[in-house]
Amino acid sequence: MKTDQNGYTIIIGCGRLGANLANALSDAEGNVLIMDKNGDAFRKLSPSFGGLTATADATDIDALQAAGMDKADTVIVVTNNDNVNVMVAQLAREVFHVHEVIARLYDPERECVYQEFGIATICPAILSAKEINKILDRATLVEASDDAGK
Amino acid sequence: MKTDQNGYTIIIGCGRLGANLANALSDAEGNVLIMDKNGDAFRKLSPSFGGLTATADATDIDALQAAGMDKADTVIVVTNNDNVNVMVAQLAREVFHVHEVIARLYDPERECVYQEFGIATICPAILSAKEINKILDRATLVEASDDAGK
Repeated sequence: MKTDQNGYTIIIGCGRLGANLANALSDAEGNVLIMDKNGDAFRKLSPSFGGLTATADATDIDALQAAGMDKADTVIVVTNNDNVNVMVAQLAREVFHVHEVIARLYDPERECVYQEFGIATICPAILSAKEINKILDRATLVEASDDAGK
Repeated sequence: MKTDQNGYTIIIGCGRLGANLANALSDAEGNVLIMDKNGDAFRKLSPSFGGLTATADATDIDALQAAGMDKADTVIVVTNNDNVNVMVAQLAREVFHVHEVIARLYDPERECVYQEFGIATICPAILSAKEINKILDRATLVEASDDAGK
C-alpha cells in the first residue's frame, strides 16, 4: 500500500473547511497541497502552514496534473460549488486513480452520483441535523432523569 | 418540567437544514412552527408537513411573540446569517426564557459569545472536518489490517 502517515494529500478549495483541514494535516506532518482559484483565499491558512499552495482552477486537468494528483494518496474536494466538486472528484478517481477521494456536497440528493464512483461524501446539512438531534435527545434524557428523581 | 415529546418547537430559517428538521419533527408528531422572512422558502417543506409556517422577520420581537415563543420548549435558529442567529438566540434565551436554544454558526470564533448565554451551537465546518477525519482514520485502519494480513 502506498498510503502512510506521510502520504500526499491534495485539498481543493481554501474556504474555512479546506483551510482548517490543510492546517491540521500540516501540523500532523503530512505532505499537503491546497488549491484555490483565488490566491487571496490562502490568507485563511495559519502562519505555521508548511504545505504547498497552488492558485489554479481545479476543473483544468493540466492544473491537477501540475499539482501531482497522480501521486496523491488522498484528495479532498471542498469548494463551495457542488458542480465543481462532482467534476474534480470524478477526475481524481477516474483519471488519476486516487485511492481515497472525499467530496463535500451541499445538496444531498446528488449522493448517489458520488457513490457510483466510489467517492466518500459529507453533507453539512445532514451532519448538522444529526448533531441537533443529538443535543435534543441529550436534553430529553437529562429531563427524564430529573423527573425520575422527584 | 414542561418539555415532553409533544413539546412546542420553533425553527427560525427555512433553508435546507431548517426545512429538514421541521419535516422530521412534524413526522414525529411534534408541535412545530417554522419562520422565514421569505414565504417562498416554505416550498422546501414536504407536502405532509403538519406544522405551522410564519412569514416574518425573526429579529422583530413582536413577530416572535406572535409565534408564541414564550410557550416554546425548544428554539432552533438556523438562518444563513450568523448575526441574525446570535440576536434571535439571545432573545429566545433572555427575553422569552426558552429552555433549549440551539443555533447554527458558520464562524466558530463566535462560539464563546453563545456559550456565555447558555446557547448550544453547531458549526458545519467543524462537523465536516470531524467527519473527514473519521473517514481518513477508517481508511488508514482498513489499510493497516490489509497490510497485516500479507
